[in-house]
Amino acid sequence: MNATPRSHCVELDARDPLAPLHDAFELPGGVIYLDGNSLGALPRATARRVQAVVEQEWGVGLIRSWNTAGWIDLAQRIGDKIAALVGAAAGQLVVGDSTSVNLYKALDSAIALSGPEPARRVILSERSNFPTDLYIADSVARARGWRLELAEAHELPARIDATLGVLMLTHVNYRTGRMHDLARLTRMAHDAGALTVWDLAHSAGAVPVDLLGSHADWAVGCGYKYLNGGPGAPAFVWAHPRHTARMDREQLRQPLSGWLGHVAPFDFTTDYRPAPGITRYVCGTPALLSMAALECGVDVYAAAQPLGGMAALRAKSLALGELFIERVASRCGDAGLELVSPTDSALRGSQVSYAHPQGHAIMQALIARGVIGDFRAGTPGGSGESGDLLRFGLTPLYTRYVDVWDATEHLGQVLDSGEWRDPRFAQRHAVT
Amino acid sequence: MNATPRSHCVELDARDPLAPLHDAFELPGGVIYLDGNSLGALPRATARRVQAVVEQEWGVGLIRSWNTAGWIDLAQRIGDKIAALVGAAAGQLVVGDSTSVNLYKALDSAIALSGPEPARRVILSERSNFPTDLYIADSVARARGWRLELAEAHELPARIDATLGVLMLTHVNYRTGRMHDLARLTRMAHDAGALTVWDLAHSAGAVPVDLLGSHADWAVGCGYKYLNGGPGAPAFVWAHPRHTARMDREQLRQPLSGWLGHVAPFDFTTDYRPAPGITRYVCGTPALLSMAALECGVDVYAAAQPLGGMAALRAKSLALGELFIERVASRCGDAGLELVSPTDSALRGSQVSYAHPQGHAIMQALIARGVIGDFRAGTPGGSGESGDLLRFGLTPLYTRYVDVWDATEHLGQVLDSGEWRDPRFAQRHAVT
Repeated sequence: MNATPRSHCVELDARDPLAPLHDAFELPGGVIYLDGNSLGALPRATARRVQAVVEQEWGVGLIRSWNTAGWIDLAQRIGDKIAALVGAAAGQLVVGDSTSVNLYKALDSAIALSGPEPARRVILSERSNFPTDLYIADSVARARGWRLELAEAHELPARIDATLGVLMLTHVNYRTGRMHDLARLTRMAHDAGALTVWDLAHSAGAVPVDLLGSHADWAVGCGYKYLNGGPGAPAFVWAHPRHTARMDREQLRQPLSGWLGHVAPFDFTTDYRPAPGITRYVCGTPALLSMAALECGVDVYAAAQPLGGMAALRAKSLALGELFIERVASRCGDAGLELVSPTDSALRGSQVSYAHPQGHAIMQALIARGVIGDFRAGTPGGSGESGDLLRFGLTPLYTRYVDVWDATEHLGQVLDSGEWRDPRFAQRHAVT
Repeated sequence: MNATPRSHCVELDARDPLAPLHDAFELPGGVIYLDGNSLGALPRATARRVQAVVEQEWGVGLIRSWNTAGWIDLAQRIGDKIAALVGAAAGQLVVGDSTSVNLYKALDSAIALSGPEPARRVILSERSNFPTDLYIADSVARARGWRLELAEAHELPARIDATLGVLMLTHVNYRTGRMHDLARLTRMAHDAGALTVWDLAHSAGAVPVDLLGSHADWAVGCGYKYLNGGPGAPAFVWAHPRHTARMDREQLRQPLSGWLGHVAPFDFTTDYRPAPGITRYVCGTPALLSMAALECGVDVYAAAQPLGGMAALRAKSLALGELFIERVASRCGDAGLELVSPTDSALRGSQVSYAHPQGHAIMQALIARGVIGDFRAGTPGGSGESGDLLRFGLTPLYTRYVDVWDATEHLGQVLDSGEWRDPRFAQRHAVT
């Protein structure tokens, strides 16, 4: 294997059409940030925008800003921008609440629209799905008299049969970065008479998604990963218009029927009548400061549009991933790192993950060097891959080829030196 | 009636022990802000704090701030501070999500702990409760095979009988400012074998509340009104420790079982096991920027503590209300304003409301003069008071006696001049 020289990475960055986007972010010196799949970096525009919302819109405008600053339409306005990133149309997607809460709404709706046949009361998901998805699905299933069943990824196609009610999957697995074929699994589910709920937490802004073209049913996603909306940024929820049209006709609600999902919230009526379309999925008053920051994050994708947009981002993401994999193989080949992400680009999201028995300490040693990825403990339930994972998120908006080269060089040095054996790297933190 | 001269209000402000707190807020010039019961004013400390969270904790600390900046404990840390304002103990209250979402959790828990007896499947509430409470209660009731029943405030005691399962009330009515006797109604409900869920949206920070002393069961509340947490600030939820202890023993969950309510979220297990105590009511990742702003708002109450705390705030709030009522009677006596707030201080929260057939236009004319209250449309369902309301929130942290004098003088001038008849004041905005 011919190792890529660092100078080649410098060249790749120099001719990268997306390179100008690096300057759209505030990245601290001395840090190589490869955890944008957990918390995206700070866009340069955000601090000033949030300050304006605090000092001007809230401080001076006060309650008037609901009208004058457009607060009341923010859930839809940001939603339209995210819709453009996931193959949905304007007016079909709203922002607010957390991914968990939106998943509750979406799953309950999917069950409500599934019909009552007892044999079909099963939500099927992947065993190594992100835990909050499984926890929420379990609660919705219990409340509805359904059952959550789990399978390994490779078992899913065989499990999509006439007993299935709802298929709930995270498009890109948070541990391995393995990407499901959203269109194919949706088609299989529909052929079996089931509906689908997709979690795009590791997809929106990271990989091309075509919700309408795939005829998906519901989707939710996260604002603080690839969308760079800031810590705990509000999430989003989408429903295919065929479902919201039926919900309109039959006056169906989602269960978190808060006042801003009412058809006329400021009429203050005692009875709930859902707003038409996706707006019924808005619940309470949205966290405006966090929403404002999310809009700045999403707006970076508008700046990426003239530079090639999602296609260019995907191409760079895969090139970064290939470089990472190649570099680890050539630089750290015999150090016990087991690649658990797919080598086939078509199956890989925008991260690469490695299993290693000492993964936690190795990641701590890397972080001490300023290379920030993250660590995910092994899933006790079993998940097709085993053990503790080092995760490296590749965010083509701001990750450079030279960052990958330097990060993998640090990784090699950490493994060569054994510095991860330092007792301070054994210490577990509240958040890992 | 002897009208209070303005000079007397200036004197009252001069000897007000809480007067220094006025400087803890950024209030725009030329504005008298009497809508803190809808959106609290901006504390002076907030802009800098939010900026630090954005630029330092997020921008520089990045993912590390979950540990180093204490993000992971923020729901509990702010919760402890709010607990002190509502008669609860540290460790019993958490912050996050919206009031609507927290109400869903609390009501579902109350039903779960009510037992299965069919005759008791009724949630009782007040017809003029804030609509989102009724909408959420209706959805929880439907999901659980229960029923939501509504009554006028004066009918409530007679309706608390053996058929009742859960009594859900907003402590202080959003329209009239009328305050329920939380302790008495809770005792009546318990005597009838029912549980209680209290919405403290217009109570927390506004009136003394003694949740533990009243033996209340669940409570939720809002962060963006009297707590000054900023637009759409996260809400809070409290459960009496006797209920969380039972939920611990029986491993009961609330339905929005997100990962941060798990006993060990970073173990990433496939099965949900609720965290002990109130932490099980945390759901997804909290909106950190909005949480940080909320903490600044709540911290103003710590500054009020050496100045007399909640008792002093309540005394000033009532004095402001009495002044407002007296001034309207003497200055605008025959202009058709009907006081719908209780004159009995013991029954009044921290606002005064007036019905007037032209309430919307009058409030618009006041706002044009820089006197910001708000307008609430008449409740079509009927609510004991009728018609369109002008609401004036009195927030003793920053409302001065002279503000009340000036606001009522403007109100008198608007009514005397008939300037509210200007066609531009007839225009309805998205948010009223």
